[in-house]
Amino acid sequence: MKRNIKEIVQKLTLEEKASLCSGKDFWTTVAIDRLDIPSIMLTDGPHGLRKQAGEADHLGLNQSVASTCFPTAAGLASSWNRELIHKVGDAIGEEAQAEGVSIVLGPGANIKRSPLCGRNFEYFSEDPYLTGELAAAHISGVQSQGVGASLKHFAVNNQEHRRMTTDAVVDERTLRELYLTGFEMAVKSSQPWTVMSAYNRLNGTYCSENKTLLTSILKEEWGHEGFVVSDWGAVNEAADSVSAGMELEMPSSLGIGQEKIVSAVKSGELSSEALDQAVERLLTVIFKAADNQKPNASYDKQAHHRLAREVAQETIVLLKNDDNLLPLAKSGKIAIIGEMAEQVRYQGGGSSHINPTSLDNIKNEIEKSAIGAEIQFSLGYQLDLDTTNDELVLEAQQIAAASDVAILFVGLPDRYESEGYDRTHLNLPANQLELIEGIVSVQSNVIVVLSNGAPIVMPWMDRVNAVLEAYLGGQAVGGAIADILFGDANPSGKLAETFPGNLKHTPAHPFFPGEGDRVEYREGIFVGYRYYEMKEIEPLFPFGFGLSYTSFAYSDLVMDSYELTDQDVVNVSVNIKNTGAVFGREVVQLYVRDVDSTMIRPMKELKGFTKVALEPGEEKTVTFQLDKRSFAYYNVELADWHVESGEFQVLVGSSSQDIRLQNTLTVHSTTKIVPVFHRNSTLGDIMSNPATMPVLEQMQSMAPSSDQTSDAVSNDMMMAMMRYLPLRALLPFTNGALTEEGLTGLIAQFNNAVRTEQA
Amino acid sequence: MKRNIKEIVQKLTLEEKASLCSGKDFWTTVAIDRLDIPSIMLTDGPHGLRKQAGEADHLGLNQSVASTCFPTAAGLASSWNRELIHKVGDAIGEEAQAEGVSIVLGPGANIKRSPLCGRNFEYFSEDPYLTGELAAAHISGVQSQGVGASLKHFAVNNQEHRRMTTDAVVDERTLRELYLTGFEMAVKSSQPWTVMSAYNRLNGTYCSENKTLLTSILKEEWGHEGFVVSDWGAVNEAADSVSAGMELEMPSSLGIGQEKIVSAVKSGELSSEALDQAVERLLTVIFKAADNQKPNASYDKQAHHRLAREVAQETIVLLKNDDNLLPLAKSGKIAIIGEMAEQVRYQGGGSSHINPTSLDNIKNEIEKSAIGAEIQFSLGYQLDLDTTNDELVLEAQQIAAASDVAILFVGLPDRYESEGYDRTHLNLPANQLELIEGIVSVQSNVIVVLSNGAPIVMPWMDRVNAVLEAYLGGQAVGGAIADILFGDANPSGKLAETFPGNLKHTPAHPFFPGEGDRVEYREGIFVGYRYYEMKEIEPLFPFGFGLSYTSFAYSDLVMDSYELTDQDVVNVSVNIKNTGAVFGREVVQLYVRDVDSTMIRPMKELKGFTKVALEPGEEKTVTFQLDKRSFAYYNVELADWHVESGEFQVLVGSSSQDIRLQNTLTVHSTTKIVPVFHRNSTLGDIMSNPATMPVLEQMQSMAPSSDQTSDAVSNDMMMAMMRYLPLRALLPFTNGALTEEGLTGLIAQFNNAVRTEQA
Repeated sequence: MKRNIKEIVQKLTLEEKASLCSGKDFWTTVAIDRLDIPSIMLTDGPHGLRKQAGEADHLGLNQSVASTCFPTAAGLASSWNRELIHKVGDAIGEEAQAEGVSIVLGPGANIKRSPLCGRNFEYFSEDPYLTGELAAAHISGVQSQGVGASLKHFAVNNQEHRRMTTDAVVDERTLRELYLTGFEMAVKSSQPWTVMSAYNRLNGTYCSENKTLLTSILKEEWGHEGFVVSDWGAVNEAADSVSAGMELEMPSSLGIGQEKIVSAVKSGELSSEALDQAVERLLTVIFKAADNQKPNASYDKQAHHRLAREVAQETIVLLKNDDNLLPLAKSGKIAIIGEMAEQVRYQGGGSSHINPTSLDNIKNEIEKSAIGAEIQFSLGYQLDLDTTNDELVLEAQQIAAASDVAILFVGLPDRYESEGYDRTHLNLPANQLELIEGIVSVQSNVIVVLSNGAPIVMPWMDRVNAVLEAYLGGQAVGGAIADILFGDANPSGKLAETFPGNLKHTPAHPFFPGEGDRVEYREGIFVGYRYYEMKEIEPLFPFGFGLSYTSFAYSDLVMDSYELTDQDVVNVSVNIKNTGAVFGREVVQLYVRDVDSTMIRPMKELKGFTKVALEPGEEKTVTFQLDKRSFAYYNVELADWHVESGEFQVLVGSSSQDIRLQNTLTVHSTTKIVPVFHRNSTLGDIMSNPATMPVLEQMQSMAPSSDQTSDAVSNDMMMAMMRYLPLRALLPFTNGALTEEGLTGLIAQFNNAVRTEQA
Repeated sequence: MKRNIKEIVQKLTLEEKASLCSGKDFWTTVAIDRLDIPSIMLTDGPHGLRKQAGEADHLGLNQSVASTCFPTAAGLASSWNRELIHKVGDAIGEEAQAEGVSIVLGPGANIKRSPLCGRNFEYFSEDPYLTGELAAAHISGVQSQGVGASLKHFAVNNQEHRRMTTDAVVDERTLRELYLTGFEMAVKSSQPWTVMSAYNRLNGTYCSENKTLLTSILKEEWGHEGFVVSDWGAVNEAADSVSAGMELEMPSSLGIGQEKIVSAVKSGELSSEALDQAVERLLTVIFKAADNQKPNASYDKQAHHRLAREVAQETIVLLKNDDNLLPLAKSGKIAIIGEMAEQVRYQGGGSSHINPTSLDNIKNEIEKSAIGAEIQFSLGYQLDLDTTNDELVLEAQQIAAASDVAILFVGLPDRYESEGYDRTHLNLPANQLELIEGIVSVQSNVIVVLSNGAPIVMPWMDRVNAVLEAYLGGQAVGGAIADILFGDANPSGKLAETFPGNLKHTPAHPFFPGEGDRVEYREGIFVGYRYYEMKEIEPLFPFGFGLSYTSFAYSDLVMDSYELTDQDVVNVSVNIKNTGAVFGREVVQLYVRDVDSTMIRPMKELKGFTKVALEPGEEKTVTFQLDKRSFAYYNVELADWHVESGEFQVLVGSSSQDIRLQNTLTVHSTTKIVPVFHRNSTLGDIMSNPATMPVLEQMQSMAPSSDQTSDAVSNDMMMAMMRYLPLRALLPFTNGALTEEGLTGLIAQFNNAVRTEQA
């Protein structure tokens, strides 16, 4: 329905406008009946719907209605499958329509700065490009159903420790290249109806009051058309938030926010235009939501459960498979060990916690799948304790010893990772570690299946034969694990994050989670694989890594251009062939490396990926398109992305550490940076600029002569001294040949020369 | 002679005062005859005298008079011997008196942030405590002869790359704990007559114009009584320098500085009081220098050469000695290989370059020492090239194969490290590497002797039997090497810096040497062993490491107090016994570790060391005294050193990685930090303060009840949410029980409670 929203805004009183900027209660917006402004409902997401059953309570803690629980983002990201994630979004949108929900909070696009962050299971990756692509797919899916997404937590909310007060101190380039890029990509390509402002402060200012973030960057630079909603309880001062570009405070401020906004407008502290704009943005989305509601919608629970299983298959990452122990035959004697095979950990704690429509029990699913096998089960450990129960270990050892193979189900208990707090170490519980040692001592075929939302260290890695990383795989993960174990599905997940060998090797250590309310991002752009590669620290498993039951051959890396400007695009193609015996999917990854740069840049960065499905013997050509952004870094002085002219390597491979093909191209920048010379410009900088040569020649006689060397000062040293010499230092060293006035004139000539050449 | 300096200053004209603030020429100060103000001479140091022969030229490049070349600071520091370094200072002071030099520039107290810094050979260590102790000993030695030292380069001059323009961006705590502590210790304990301001900028301001550095910290906080001289050519704007607390510009500004200072005083930009103070400081030192001159002084060249040999013996570090291959017998067949055995590299290039009184040839010294041996020599490589000469390798292989043992002399050529530029890698030249491979393939007893000013990587380490690090050992290093090789001296040097396994593992990588004119010290306080330990990166050789021909037993770590306040001192004693068969010296190292801290602190820090000489079987008790500073970190908010009350470990050992004894004590802070609570103080912070309990109890009913949990929100999460909840967030969550006014009142009560408790 078309409405004139500006007109509606004009009809609203100041108090009404202010009232719209805060929720009615925990989950809904304020309605204004006299102007037919409806109330819409927002609920938690993002890997399923968490709609509170019954009345909203003041903490949002009521039991929620049943909905399909898909793998959490950490798992979804391991699929590296845009289409699959779009389908998940579709399904969540459908369920939202069936429940009368207009906006589903999510996806989360925060970067995994440290594996310790308690909420990493809700985030995609350590890489901003992968994050941006997958967040965009998720949003497009949800919104294709007439339901809004809420891209969160904007921005730099990379820890739970003191999340409501901590100040993330991040330099501008790191902010742009690492922490904002995923948001930028998702906003530009999928226009989420809402963006959620984060709890924390960024460089001193609360994200919910951060005009640079919410207005200059999000609305003006990126063109976001929707509104910004606060994370629940994130608002510090309501009027400052509205002024900064945050339109909706959630949950209800119980009138406090309204009062503050009204008085700020009356005092002139908040302009009425700013408030009007906020209300316009709110009403635009609210009416769109109302118009898109499908009152009698329903969805097919079984179909969604099947989708959840299909998705989970692609999220599982095969980390190790010595002597092709996997897939297992559906026969023989199999020991299933570990309470997690029954008490499945399939999602994380906190606002994203779903009440699932049904839940696979892993043990049952294995029994259903491996019908020819003789299966025994033992608890092995108590999931709710860290201490070892010797009897359980003994019992597990007995069935393991009596079987052909033992499958161990271990992972992080709920209490180890959750929204709200961070881990302090990367270990499994002590009782699980002791169980693993106990089993490998009696059985030589050991498969470990991990359920966890973020990396753990694996001191036992060398002593087991196979490892499956199942992440938090949603309600159908049990069936998916059975599918993978027995070869009904071929694993195709790849790590969307580095698994470190040691907590101390992680990029942010020891600066995570900061001191008091201040956390410095000292590692800068060197997060995830960018760090391990730069420091040559070997991780346990690298970014992009994952095994398959088949093998793939890479060939024929072809680019349609080998020399281009930063305004051109280049198409890269490569052939992938399934050289094994079974159907499989390969995630083909493209990285770009600036061969030689005056800037400090990563060894390489992900700039493209595609997942390709291949029958045995089948070959396909996959293509990538690279543009300016693929080669650029963020130049703080230009306040823009910039490509430094020169050579770039294009690297295509199966993981960040398994590059199969590479080639080189040259990119020319179309942005000319005109230097401004001054008394502290160095002779070297001036000499390296061709435009200044004529001026330089005329002053050659003044420079300290470089053939006058001695034992103490070698020719190399003299040349370095000259190169690094600031112009003003010529004064004492030229023995009076150059005066202050002469220097000023000289600098003017240099600047004139470079400006003239530019024009 | 007593003079009234204030009176003399009053008699000076403005122009005369200004003229005194710049040199007369390259090496001397301005004299004012009418007031009997003499000119004094400054010359380069610090490991010997570099006094220009003849007239000063405008670049200071003339040949210098002969003087004794002692090991450079990197070597001196490896002795860990305060008394020995004091003796070196004595000798340099004597030589200065003999040459009419009043101030010898040095020592350098800059921290080795990266092994790439071209001037590291002139600096002591990566550790500020070791740096401070040794710089103080050096200064005391020089000044005991009536000659002034010049502590340099103040401050944060840790690279040669763009050294005259680069801006070192360092946080305050890192500055205090790492980069200033060595200067602070040396100034407070030895009062150098002068301090030299560095070329670079620090946090945006040239060090020579940095009032915080030169006035607030150096003069006011530390009580420096002398004057500040610029590094040669470091002055940007002369009047700004004087205003900041830099008294003497060197070399002569040819009248430019004088003119600028005069006009700044006339315009009021520079106060005449500031100029008067500068001149007072200058005259105080100039007259002291003049009064202390010994017109007919001379020194014993042979005695100083013997001292240089004694010192060099203690600087050599035995890094590896498989099967006690060393010391060698003075018999059998010995192959000496490598041009560096003849073209000895015993000092570095640049301002510290000495014209030695004599120079040991290593090969000759070995021949003199091993009189019973049959010695052959081969060049092995060309020192002035990187490319391999196959004939030289072949010849070397032949004599190696025909000998019982091969001693390889390799290291960094002059062109690899120098003042003026930094290295870009840590490798030996390719031809030397190929020679090593060639020799180990034909001889199984290989000793490598290294001559270099800073760490190199040693990919060949596993394939040689013994390694001696001789650093740049001064003019008598040849004799000292012979002494060590054949057991006439027992090596007692310990590394004063970590040897990394890989350039990429070094703390500052990839942020060294910065982008353009900006270098960010992102690793903060984690430099040297503090970094490798924190990141659990194994170095090639750790800080404090060095082998001996004997062995030492540590026992009986005793402290005279196990619980103290930060105003107390604690005495720590430990027994050391020589358990081997030969006389030897051991460097006993004491480290302190804060067991549990809210601050990010190193795993341990050096806080004491002593070198003890022991005959076989002899045992001595060594003692250390620890005080507040031994336990403190720099608290930026307090702008003071602060000890966080709690447990500290005292660790005593033979290297940073070889701790032999440890014990624990408790230190109580006498500084009370009174928190100031505000609307964004967290409930957790308030709850952890006992004083606020009564106030908290009365508000308990308002807080969101924590027993109301659900599947989504576990008890753990609820507790974390409460802990991290800012007070202002209680408003929406208390369902109206708390109002804005109520909150303001509550905060006042909290603050009142902690202030009352404090009083």
